[in-house]
Amino acid sequence: MGFSFSVTATDGKARTGVIDTPRGAIRTPAFMPVGTAATVKAMLPESVRATGADIILGNTYHLMLRPGAERIARLGGLHRFMHWDGPILTDSGGFQVMSLAALRQLSEEGVRFSSHIDGSRHLLSPETSMEIQRLLGSDIVMAFDECTPFPADHATAAASMRLSMRWAARSRDAFGDRPGHALFGIVQGSVYPDLRAESAAALTAIGFDGYAIGGLAVGEGQDAMFQVLDHAPGTLPFDKPRYLMGVGKPDDIVGAVARGIDMMDCVLPTRSGRTGQAWTPRGPVNLRNARHADDPRPLDENCACPACRGYSRAYLHHVVRSDEIIGSMLLTWHNLQYYQSLMAGLRDAIASGRLAGFVADFHAQRAAGDILPV
Amino acid sequence: MGFSFSVTATDGKARTGVIDTPRGAIRTPAFMPVGTAATVKAMLPESVRATGADIILGNTYHLMLRPGAERIARLGGLHRFMHWDGPILTDSGGFQVMSLAALRQLSEEGVRFSSHIDGSRHLLSPETSMEIQRLLGSDIVMAFDECTPFPADHATAAASMRLSMRWAARSRDAFGDRPGHALFGIVQGSVYPDLRAESAAALTAIGFDGYAIGGLAVGEGQDAMFQVLDHAPGTLPFDKPRYLMGVGKPDDIVGAVARGIDMMDCVLPTRSGRTGQAWTPRGPVNLRNARHADDPRPLDENCACPACRGYSRAYLHHVVRSDEIIGSMLLTWHNLQYYQSLMAGLRDAIASGRLAGFVADFHAQRAAGDILPV
Repeated sequence: MGFSFSVTATDGKARTGVIDTPRGAIRTPAFMPVGTAATVKAMLPESVRATGADIILGNTYHLMLRPGAERIARLGGLHRFMHWDGPILTDSGGFQVMSLAALRQLSEEGVRFSSHIDGSRHLLSPETSMEIQRLLGSDIVMAFDECTPFPADHATAAASMRLSMRWAARSRDAFGDRPGHALFGIVQGSVYPDLRAESAAALTAIGFDGYAIGGLAVGEGQDAMFQVLDHAPGTLPFDKPRYLMGVGKPDDIVGAVARGIDMMDCVLPTRSGRTGQAWTPRGPVNLRNARHADDPRPLDENCACPACRGYSRAYLHHVVRSDEIIGSMLLTWHNLQYYQSLMAGLRDAIASGRLAGFVADFHAQRAAGDILPV
Repeated sequence: MGFSFSVTATDGKARTGVIDTPRGAIRTPAFMPVGTAATVKAMLPESVRATGADIILGNTYHLMLRPGAERIARLGGLHRFMHWDGPILTDSGGFQVMSLAALRQLSEEGVRFSSHIDGSRHLLSPETSMEIQRLLGSDIVMAFDECTPFPADHATAAASMRLSMRWAARSRDAFGDRPGHALFGIVQGSVYPDLRAESAAALTAIGFDGYAIGGLAVGEGQDAMFQVLDHAPGTLPFDKPRYLMGVGKPDDIVGAVARGIDMMDCVLPTRSGRTGQAWTPRGPVNLRNARHADDPRPLDENCACPACRGYSRAYLHHVVRSDEIIGSMLLTWHNLQYYQSLMAGLRDAIASGRLAGFVADFHAQRAAGDILPV
């Protein structure tokens, strides 16, 4: 069994399709919940599956430091370790080593750094990143890259992107031939169209199983992000998955899908769920707000998640205010359910050629705002 | 539908039976998970039910302060609020007001105090405790008492117990006649047999639907507790449930059941689950311990809970060390599952007249200790 992608329908620039992997199919456009440290926080994996997720993401940087990639390999790989039998995409560690690690030394070779947990010294390079992701048993492996900081002037962005392209070639060589496993390249180039185009051409020349757009959602704002996405997906092969890394809010997702993106990941639904913020068709709802204290209605009357079927807003308010774990459990589940419902809606709309209407409805519902207490 | 109790079998002093309530049957001996603030911490209520729990406990003191008993009543009562449709026992607030509240003033009337959350002033008395428990919709209401501190000399313990007996009579009057709801009295008297007997006689004269043994598990130690339990259950009516409050460790439970106790509650399985400690037939296991880091075996190969069926000790060690919420979720579930399995085993053993053998096996398994890495 190999790894393959097929587009089954298009609507404008948007596509819907399926990525087949030996561990199961991934319906696209797909949202991937983030399971940083071998857990999608506050969720059991069977609950993640129940929301409709086909694939989750693991973080190479976190896992290599704790519990360690060799240990996970000895224990049968990340899937068995965390009790998730569907596909897993792992990032390369490139983004997080630059944002979390201490005493970083960036060179042509890679990044030497100290663990933020115990201070131990490590090297992340194209070769070590490929080896760690192999030990984890990742289904979709990401090339090792440097996430260009934002803002960056043209010369800085060009130098950073070209380093990432040399690392992409080394990643491709180090990955080798692994049937059933995929390697994705990552487009960089900040907000500069010429650099994005150069990066896409360089990656396509190397040849990958899929292509990610990196270096966005780093503070540039939605307008600048969408400007990049107005062009970047079209510079990539039509018949390969396009993955927008680290995005995003629901309206980011809708805009990205309309521009031809097939895969996304973000900590937002899970992180928000641990701080009392819910995402609904009517926009974000802060359950800490006192207006919910006596509200007997569900968070979202049309949602099938346990939080909306079993509990009032008053209860959710109470457990969030009381810092009870069930508050994180219920709101995380709801947020992931909402995200997956949104993806299912996008897929259906594209398949039936009515994406424009779906997007208009999406924005109209948000403009109406959250229902207020009667 | 009323409230009734029937003993279906005895084995020595131990009994097994069933408490029938309008919200369902409670198989005894019963262990009641503690749902302090309208949640059994780190568990969804359907998961609590799945462990085999027939009844849970709520804390009057916590709920009256946050979110408030009147609010819970407006929202349809505690069962609907927390999405648990089985029976709920609520304590009277008497124990926790003395251990948690600030600026306490104890008088014949009751206890005036300041909330530990917002400093607001409140009165807990037999009359207000009955009213709050009525507003919550509790199925089994506890009389308002003073939990005698330990140690206490005979005169202090006697004065405290007699205050609790006057409060018990006032609780009985204030409770009134509420078909389908039960009121339990609470025996006090510290470690003094004459005071325990006097208290039991006073409560029996008033007449309650069940009788609790209070003032234990407060630091007196298992030997002193068992000495009280060698006599106290026999001073209570045979045909009413006997509830040992706040107990305990698995070996406390086994010893209490053998001495004629029908109901117990304790935060231990849930609290332990949030600190990395698991309870198993082979005794307690601390998952933080480094010996588990590479252990591919389940916590307990004979346990049917999600933690034991889906994960290795190495994974549990990892998520406990990483302070991941799933660690609390899985270990709490396991601990509650173990406690309920222990209760089921005790019930079966009593019903078939082989409790002595069950107790011997229980201690033999614990003496063997936890399985060590190979």
